[in-house]
Amino acid sequence: MNQILEIDQRNMTATVEAGLVLSRFHRTVEKMGLFYPPDPQSMSVCTLGGNVATRAGGPRGVKYGTTGNYVLGMEIVLPDGTVINSGGKFVKQSVGYDITHLMTGSEGTLGVITRINVRLIALPPEHRTIVVTCESPEQAAEIVAEIIARGTVPAMLEYLSQGAVGLMNNMISPPLAGDADAYLLIEVDGNRSQVDYDTAVISGLCKEMKSRDVRVIEDEREAASYWRARSNLYPLMLTIMERVISEDLTVPRSMLPEMVRMVQEVSASTGVGIGLGGHAGDGNIHPTILHFQTSPELDEKSQVAIGELLKKGLELGGTISGEHGIGIHKSEFLAWELGEVQIELMKRIKQAFDPLNIMNPGKIWPEGGECRC
Amino acid sequence: MNQILEIDQRNMTATVEAGLVLSRFHRTVEKMGLFYPPDPQSMSVCTLGGNVATRAGGPRGVKYGTTGNYVLGMEIVLPDGTVINSGGKFVKQSVGYDITHLMTGSEGTLGVITRINVRLIALPPEHRTIVVTCESPEQAAEIVAEIIARGTVPAMLEYLSQGAVGLMNNMISPPLAGDADAYLLIEVDGNRSQVDYDTAVISGLCKEMKSRDVRVIEDEREAASYWRARSNLYPLMLTIMERVISEDLTVPRSMLPEMVRMVQEVSASTGVGIGLGGHAGDGNIHPTILHFQTSPELDEKSQVAIGELLKKGLELGGTISGEHGIGIHKSEFLAWELGEVQIELMKRIKQAFDPLNIMNPGKIWPEGGECRC
Repeated sequence: MNQILEIDQRNMTATVEAGLVLSRFHRTVEKMGLFYPPDPQSMSVCTLGGNVATRAGGPRGVKYGTTGNYVLGMEIVLPDGTVINSGGKFVKQSVGYDITHLMTGSEGTLGVITRINVRLIALPPEHRTIVVTCESPEQAAEIVAEIIARGTVPAMLEYLSQGAVGLMNNMISPPLAGDADAYLLIEVDGNRSQVDYDTAVISGLCKEMKSRDVRVIEDEREAASYWRARSNLYPLMLTIMERVISEDLTVPRSMLPEMVRMVQEVSASTGVGIGLGGHAGDGNIHPTILHFQTSPELDEKSQVAIGELLKKGLELGGTISGEHGIGIHKSEFLAWELGEVQIELMKRIKQAFDPLNIMNPGKIWPEGGECRC
Repeated sequence: MNQILEIDQRNMTATVEAGLVLSRFHRTVEKMGLFYPPDPQSMSVCTLGGNVATRAGGPRGVKYGTTGNYVLGMEIVLPDGTVINSGGKFVKQSVGYDITHLMTGSEGTLGVITRINVRLIALPPEHRTIVVTCESPEQAAEIVAEIIARGTVPAMLEYLSQGAVGLMNNMISPPLAGDADAYLLIEVDGNRSQVDYDTAVISGLCKEMKSRDVRVIEDEREAASYWRARSNLYPLMLTIMERVISEDLTVPRSMLPEMVRMVQEVSASTGVGIGLGGHAGDGNIHPTILHFQTSPELDEKSQVAIGELLKKGLELGGTISGEHGIGIHKSEFLAWELGEVQIELMKRIKQAFDPLNIMNPGKIWPEGGECRC
């Protein structure tokens, strides 16, 4: 259930069981000089099967893409108990419908994924962390858009609010100066010359754009502590918050400045605290609803705020989920993005796999008529 | 039908109509410093819509992936005339089933693709061509596997037989020495330091592995003439052949040496001339049946040879099509790769889209009972 079945160094592929915990897989392949980039921040507990089922991403998505970019094939138990194998260990295939990518992100509603073939790449030999302190969230968003537009693609390009840095400082030594409204935590990777080149480009443009400070972290342990703190941001939030609801709105990257302003407006108009932090390079900076305490009134206000965030995010050309999936939580908003015709089509696809509706019913779309559309 | 509707430089995306010819799109975005890597060698006539419908690839697949890696969303006319939009201009999405990638490679059997959103990347500033003359096809295949295993990923990594080079020499000045059995035509790209680094790694390992010759082409026009000749290989073959049948067998990269031997054996045992050339870095070196003249006997022998190639390619862990699709030509072999259960599932998916079976019937699987399985 949770084993690595094969690591094929010549082909740079691996075959794993679906229950394998991601961080264990990372450690194993990295010892061999190989790299499996997808890095949902729950990596110490999440499984490859779950990553595939939700099309999971993480900070490295900006350069390396998300889980779907690495899945080459899988073993699937169909609802009637028959077993099929989609894809394989080859790097490309054009043989009928792409069952592999249809299963990726299907949230358990089409069949049970039991084995997965993934593509590996060579572990980049060098990496370097850069911390940019910004004058404002808007400036941070502008810098992100500019980095991408110049064709310098960092391995990670994370947006952090003042609140996020305050929490992370509990794990960072020496702590970051916590008095700015927005920060960018960046990693570049590759061979030494690539890392030097990318560092120079990013530092240069941050200075041109008059960011408050750019710091290239030379000490590896210091850099690692920043990323460890970033990975722990969600549990850190839970140490002081009663409830944390992480939304997954993703917009075209150029819309980040508008998204930052929009989230601030929704927070102000609904009276709900909303943090921002995450994968800026992907336009996916997770608006996060933060409750120091819970109450039915606050829950109700939060629902209003979530609806506003998603509706306005869609108006910015975005999607209600970049890497988390829909599940139950966002199912009532599905039609806003897809429209009824596309949802009906998806229901017929589910029917093609699962005529008895036994696979994770009630996920992605509501079972009854509760849709808000 | 054939227009570029938008090139969004900030987001590095484009929206095009399905009838747009690929080479026109390449030229337009490259003038803006942007890059759309997929490069089927029919690029001067093929369309983006066709590329998506067949999940098309090309030489750059080894580094940059194929069409499916660039499609972000599309407008689809369903068989009942309703129009849906899948995906969008964002770089990731996890909202229900991945309709975008289900349509990609569906060969016109699910709906009509009318508009396509694609992801662009920054045009690499430098590129360099390397020609490796090998002692044998097996050595060429070993060098390819070693290049990939060292983590140096060329932008293109093409295998060429003696016959292919002989034809290409009609377009190359000065011509290549045509007396070797196998060649590798390689391009590395990136910034200057990356190009220097990759050139050194590849040249070094070719020497270690005792290839006959490694030549780094410094003259840009000379390098361009090699790639132009490579692109024209198929029409060049048709200048001397009566019939050319390009197969699309793709194996895990480490299996290339076995594949080369297998193709030689099938050619010898069936008495059918079979050339080899193409995307070695992807394990996709297109066994190509070559007829100087046609006859019913030769057609029959060719069918036997194709069957042998595909059956033995599958035994090597391969797929019967890496980037061409199935169409009519390979439909009788579909079950060898997918098995009946998976084909039945695909038929139900088609039914979910196209209950009246009006979309390109008879493609991918045979309409009647002609399956060889």
